[in-house]
Amino acid sequence: MNENNTIEEQYDYLLQCLKSEDMTNFRTAFFDLHIYEQGQFYQSLDEDERLRLYHYLSPKEMADMFDVIEEDNEDVKDYLKEMRPQYIADMLSEMYTDNAADILNQLDKASVARYLSIMDSDSAEEIKELLHYEDETAGAIMATEYVAIKANQTVHSAMNLLKKEARSAETIYYVYVIDEQERLIGVMSLRDLIVSDDDVMIADIVSERVISVKVGDDQADVAKTIRDYDFLAVPVTDYDDHLLGIITVDDIIDVIDDEAASDYSGLAGVNVEEVSDNPFKSSAKRLPWLITLLFLGMSTASLIAHYEELVSEASILAVFISLITGTAGNAGTQSLAVAVRKLAVTDDKDANFFRSIITEVLTGLVTGFVTGATIFVIVGIWKQNFTLGFVIGAAMLCAITVANLAGSLIPLLMEKLGFDPAVASGPFITTLSDLTSVLIYFNIASLFMSYFIT
Amino acid sequence: MNENNTIEEQYDYLLQCLKSEDMTNFRTAFFDLHIYEQGQFYQSLDEDERLRLYHYLSPKEMADMFDVIEEDNEDVKDYLKEMRPQYIADMLSEMYTDNAADILNQLDKASVARYLSIMDSDSAEEIKELLHYEDETAGAIMATEYVAIKANQTVHSAMNLLKKEARSAETIYYVYVIDEQERLIGVMSLRDLIVSDDDVMIADIVSERVISVKVGDDQADVAKTIRDYDFLAVPVTDYDDHLLGIITVDDIIDVIDDEAASDYSGLAGVNVEEVSDNPFKSSAKRLPWLITLLFLGMSTASLIAHYEELVSEASILAVFISLITGTAGNAGTQSLAVAVRKLAVTDDKDANFFRSIITEVLTGLVTGFVTGATIFVIVGIWKQNFTLGFVIGAAMLCAITVANLAGSLIPLLMEKLGFDPAVASGPFITTLSDLTSVLIYFNIASLFMSYFIT
Repeated sequence: MNENNTIEEQYDYLLQCLKSEDMTNFRTAFFDLHIYEQGQFYQSLDEDERLRLYHYLSPKEMADMFDVIEEDNEDVKDYLKEMRPQYIADMLSEMYTDNAADILNQLDKASVARYLSIMDSDSAEEIKELLHYEDETAGAIMATEYVAIKANQTVHSAMNLLKKEARSAETIYYVYVIDEQERLIGVMSLRDLIVSDDDVMIADIVSERVISVKVGDDQADVAKTIRDYDFLAVPVTDYDDHLLGIITVDDIIDVIDDEAASDYSGLAGVNVEEVSDNPFKSSAKRLPWLITLLFLGMSTASLIAHYEELVSEASILAVFISLITGTAGNAGTQSLAVAVRKLAVTDDKDANFFRSIITEVLTGLVTGFVTGATIFVIVGIWKQNFTLGFVIGAAMLCAITVANLAGSLIPLLMEKLGFDPAVASGPFITTLSDLTSVLIYFNIASLFMSYFIT
Repeated sequence: MNENNTIEEQYDYLLQCLKSEDMTNFRTAFFDLHIYEQGQFYQSLDEDERLRLYHYLSPKEMADMFDVIEEDNEDVKDYLKEMRPQYIADMLSEMYTDNAADILNQLDKASVARYLSIMDSDSAEEIKELLHYEDETAGAIMATEYVAIKANQTVHSAMNLLKKEARSAETIYYVYVIDEQERLIGVMSLRDLIVSDDDVMIADIVSERVISVKVGDDQADVAKTIRDYDFLAVPVTDYDDHLLGIITVDDIIDVIDDEAASDYSGLAGVNVEEVSDNPFKSSAKRLPWLITLLFLGMSTASLIAHYEELVSEASILAVFISLITGTAGNAGTQSLAVAVRKLAVTDDKDANFFRSIITEVLTGLVTGFVTGATIFVIVGIWKQNFTLGFVIGAAMLCAITVANLAGSLIPLLMEKLGFDPAVASGPFITTLSDLTSVLIYFNIASLFMSYFIT
C-alpha cells in the first residue's frame, strides 16, 4: 500500500498534538487521514487520550469514524461509557441508521431507551424501526439513507436533488424511482443519469425491471443477489413493494466474511471469530465441544469394552482401531464439507436431497473400495495374513460408506429442520463415525475370528 | 427477489422466439433482462440454440454477457469451440481486459496466440500485458478500463470527459488524477465532482493521499484494503507509482469467496469448489488425501503393533485408544482453525509467531487438564480403578497439548516457508495427532502397567 511507511509517523504526530493540547494542528492532520485510519488511530489510544479527543471532535465527526469502526467491535460499549449521553445521542443520530442500530443492539434496554429519548426525534424514529428487524435479515442490515425521486421530472432536476443529498446519502450511485405511494417502481444508476441529456424525462429512461430484496430475506440471500448481479447496492422493500432502505456492497462484504467464518468455525468446532490471547478464555470457548464429544467418545470406549474379550484373544485387532476410525473420520469430514458447501450455494434446496445422499453414499462405496483394497494388500503382506487383511479392508469399506452417509445426511437434515447446517461440526462427525466404525469393525472381526487367529 | 415468479416465463418466451427464429422479438426481450440473467439464460441452452444465439447477438453484446459469466466457469472453453475465431477475437476485445485475460488463461497457448493475432491491436496489447502477471496477484485481477485525468482542468471539463468514457470504463465512480509521466497523484470520487462547482480546478479539490496497491500484491491483501476502507475500487500501480489499472469491488467479492472456499477446503481435506454429482469424479478428488493419510495412519498402526504385547496383557488399554486419539484430534483441529484464521486476518505475521504457539500450548494445557480430570473421574468410577483413570487422564492432557502444538505450529511454519497455511488440512492434523497420541498413551501406560492390572 502507498505511504505505508509514513502512516505510523502520522499517528505519532497526532498523538503529540493531543498531548500538547494543540487542537488546531491535531484537527488538520486528523482530517488528512482516511476515516478508516482515523478509526485505527482512535482505537490505539488510551482512555485519557480518548477523553481529550471527544472535546476536539464534534459528534458528527465522531459519527463518521464510528460508521467505519463499529463492525463486530467489542470495545464500542466501553467507548460509549466514556462519553456524555447527549454526545452519544448526537453521534448516533448522525451515523448511518444501520450502524447506529447495530451499536444500540449491543446495549442494554435502559441505555437504548435513554439515548433514543434525548436524540432528535426523526433519527430516533428511523433507528427504532430498524431495531425491530430480526438479526441477519435484510431489514437488520439495511440503511435508510438513500436517494428516492419521482419519475415525472427531468434528468437536470434529478441531478440537482442528487447534489443536495450527496453528502448524507449512503450511496448516490443508484437513484430509486418511487410512485406517489412510495412504492419502488424503477432504478437508475448515476452512470445512466450522467450520460443522459439534461432535459430528458426520468420516466422515459428509467429501468422498470428492478431487482430488489424483501425486508425479511436472509442476509446470505441478499449477499448472493449483490454478488451475482455485481451491484453496488440493492433496494429493500416490504411485501407491498414500498421502498424501506438499501443495502450497500461494503456491508455485504462483511456479511460474506461472517458467513464464511461461521462455516469455517462449524467445521472446526470452535468459533474462530472470537480469538483471544488469553489461554483461559480460549479454553473456555473450546471446552464445551471437547467435553460434549468426550462423552460421545465414551460411548465408543464402552462399545470397545463390550468386545474386550475379543481383543484379549486377538490383540492384533487393537492395532487397527485408530486406522479405521481415523480414515472413516477423514472421509466423513470431506462429505460434511461438500454437503454444507452445496447447501450454501444451491438455490433449490429440496430438489437434491435424496440425490445428494445417494451421490455421497456411492462416493463412499468407491473411495471405501479403493482404500479398503489398498489396506487389504498392505495388511495381508505385512502380517502375512490375508484373512486379517480382508477383515480390515471390509471394515474400512463399510466404515467409510457409513461416515459419508452421516457426513451428508446430518447437515441436510439440520437444514430441513431449520437449523444452520454449518453447526454440524467436523469434530462431531469424526467422533460419531468413531462409534459406527468400531461397531462395524468388531462385528466383522468376530465373524471371521476363527480364520485369522494364527 | 422481485419478479422471481416471472423470470422462468421470460426464459420460456425467449426460447420460443429462438426456436421460431423470431430475431426481433428475441432481441427486445433479451435486452430487457439484466446481463446476469442473460448469462443464466445462455447457460441453460443446448448447443443448437447457442449456435443460433451467436447469429442474433453481436460480439459486443456477447462480450457484455461474458463479462458476467466467465468467473470459474468450466464450460467457457466449450462455448468458445462453437464460435468462429474472428467472433471470439472481437468478443474478447470488447470485454473488460481482466475478464478477457481470465478466459485466455484457461486456453492452450496456440489458441491464445491465434485470437490475439486477429484481434484489434490495441486490445491485444492490453490483454497481453495482463497475461504476464502471476496468478492471484493484483496484476492478474485488475482491469485497465479506468478514467484518468490531469489536474490542471476544471470540474466541468473533467465531467465532460467522464461522460464520454462512461460507457466503456469499468467504474466511473472514481476518477484518477495523473501527472505528465502517468504517475498516480490523486483520486476523486464522482461524489466529490458532483458536489463541486463547475469552474473549480481539479488541482484544488483532489485528495492527494491515495490508497493504492502494487501490481505484485497478493489478491487477499487487495481484498483486505477494499474491505477495510469500504472502497468501490482501488488503483493498481507499479513500483514507480505509474497507474496500471483498477480493481473493482465486484471482483474482490469473488476473491473473498475463493479465499474462504479454499480455507474451508483445506480444513476439510477436499476441494469443495469442484463438486460433482458423479461418484467416480468425486472419489477421484477425495482419494489422494485419503490414501496419503492412510499411509500416515499405518505408522500409527505399526506403533500400536509395537505395543501389542502390552495390549494382550491388558486388553483394557485398547478400550481407550479411540477416545484419546479422537479427543486430541478434535483439539488439534480447533487449534489449526484458529491458527489459519489468525494468519488470514493479521497484518504483521512475524510478531506473533512465538506468542501464538505459546498461547496454543497453554490453551492445550488448560483444556487438556479439564478434559483429563473429567476422564480420570469417569474411568476411575466406571472401572473402579483410579490408577487406570490417571493413566488415561494424563495421556489425554499430554496428547491434547501436543495436538494443539502441532495444530498451530504446522500452519505457522508453512506460512513462514511460503506455502498457503490453509493447505495443512484438518484430516492431516487429526491423523498426525493419532500418531503422537498413541505414542504418549502407550508410554504412560507402560510406566504404570504394574499398578493398574487388577
